[in-house]
Amino acid sequence: MTLVVTKPTEHALAADSGWAAEVTFHVRYAETDQMGIVHHSAYVPWLEEARSALSRQYGRPYADFERAGYGLAVTELHLRFITPARYDQAVTVRVRVSKVRSRGVDFEYAVVDAATGECLATGCTVHVCIDQAGRPVRIPPDWQAFWASLKR
Amino acid sequence: MTLVVTKPTEHALAADSGWAAEVTFHVRYAETDQMGIVHHSAYVPWLEEARSALSRQYGRPYADFERAGYGLAVTELHLRFITPARYDQAVTVRVRVSKVRSRGVDFEYAVVDAATGECLATGCTVHVCIDQAGRPVRIPPDWQAFWASLKR
Amino acid sequence: MTLVVTKPTEHALAADSGWAAEVTFHVRYAETDQMGIVHHSAYVPWLEEARSALSRQYGRPYADFERAGYGLAVTELHLRFITPARYDQAVTVRVRVSKVRSRGVDFEYAVVDAATGECLATGCTVHVCIDQAGRPVRIPPDWQAFWASLKR
Amino acid sequence: MTLVVTKPTEHALAADSGWAAEVTFHVRYAETDQMGIVHHSAYVPWLEEARSALSRQYGRPYADFERAGYGLAVTELHLRFITPARYDQAVTVRVRVSKVRSRGVDFEYAVVDAATGECLATGCTVHVCIDQAGRPVRIPPDWQAFWASLKR
Repeated sequence: MTLVVTKPTEHALAADSGWAAEVTFHVRYAETDQMGIVHHSAYVPWLEEARSALSRQYGRPYADFERAGYGLAVTELHLRFITPARYDQAVTVRVRVSKVRSRGVDFEYAVVDAATGECLATGCTVHVCIDQAGRPVRIPPDWQAFWASLKR
Repeated sequence: MTLVVTKPTEHALAADSGWAAEVTFHVRYAETDQMGIVHHSAYVPWLEEARSALSRQYGRPYADFERAGYGLAVTELHLRFITPARYDQAVTVRVRVSKVRSRGVDFEYAVVDAATGECLATGCTVHVCIDQAGRPVRIPPDWQAFWASLKR
Repeated sequence: MTLVVTKPTEHALAADSGWAAEVTFHVRYAETDQMGIVHHSAYVPWLEEARSALSRQYGRPYADFERAGYGLAVTELHLRFITPARYDQAVTVRVRVSKVRSRGVDFEYAVVDAATGECLATGCTVHVCIDQAGRPVRIPPDWQAFWASLKR
Repeated sequence: MTLVVTKPTEHALAADSGWAAEVTFHVRYAETDQMGIVHHSAYVPWLEEARSALSRQYGRPYADFERAGYGLAVTELHLRFITPARYDQAVTVRVRVSKVRSRGVDFEYAVVDAATGECLATGCTVHVCIDQAGRPVRIPPDWQAFWASLKR
């Protein structure tokens, strides 16, 4: 269940050139539902994969962050669905850092059709840095600098 | 990736008595991730299952809405993660209608520990009524009255 | 994508009284695909949830097995799809232990319509006991006795 | 929950040159579980995505098959897990047609590490051609010829 009405401001956001990274893939059949479109829950791993791609492309894979004993726990998730994505469609997810705090990082996303650039969805996530016991802690300085460098 | 810091206002929301329905189930192993807690995307089908339970419990299953030629497409999703849910935990998802519009319905949710009532997450979703071609349309009057009757 | 042709032998298996435990739940909307039926991947967590229910109902939750430093890694999975499951359908998954080895356990499953008992799918999984480093190890005697006691 | 023991025959299968197509992607974080490896259910959409890639790469997208009024329902699924896949790992799924029947098609798969070619899992699926009412029907001749041409 997704949707339908396009909004000019969403399209402007999607076309904005200030993205730090993007990842493109084909929609999987398993991601559709009986409405015949992509189920809205499927977008959540897509945003996460864009974060992974961001880290990977800048040479600082998120797995290293975990190996160092940290995690970026999601504390808020917001998604706005503009136009339904469909099976086998090539989809691009764009990502950037929108805010860096001493104990957290926020990301923004646009999900667009890879061929036309049409905006399918926008989203943002709020994260808190935690240690292996799940306690909120300060982000290590090198990672904080890394994410700050991706801020637009 | 979820989290950690509890907030008094969230707990007040979860304990609020004005919920229309709830559904309880055990967290599935497949819903965990390598942080050792429930992955944040797993909550999205949980909210949806609470909507299904709501319809079912009041004798108006959502499948009937679809058989009548309509759908409730998700246009916005918001989730706030308070305390991580864990494998095999009994979880209760509470739901109510927060707004009924001529062409849409909004829902609010609280995800709580089934045993203690501790708030794990809160959320809301915004939906637009569509026809089988995916076009936004007015909600049929009987369904509009049904959802309005569940508003708190 | 599931299916259609019913087979007498499958129905006999499903109706067999030698099951050790079962769990019943409603099919989630997110588990459907654009064929209008439950996606075949959705059955895999259902089997796992039946294993969890089995452990839980006999007072030996699988979480305890993990807390003791072990895991039951899946090495083989087989599923046969008989009749498609559909959104909101009440489904029962029955489970039993089919074999206990020094380093592993096998399970068998039948997925049936909760109301009619009609067989929807059958399956089996093969597991190896591993330690926290992922190495195959002997099953601790008390757990081996537990699973052996569930063998039919 | 996946696993551990490597088998020479599996590796031989994975290295076999008779594959018709392959697709490579990074493991998503959401695909991991609390064992710290990829959950075994995650491989099922991977096999399906390899089938999609196969169709796409040979210019006969599966969406066309559906638009023509047909579907390939899964009637059997078998997976053997050899070595656990992990978050962010680049994984390649290889696929070929193993059998074409008048009313069905079977596929074989190998999931390998994209960098080293190490075999992670092997699988096969059995499909029946159905019409839009879900009834088994003969595969249209052009599609039957297409799949037969991919048989090794």
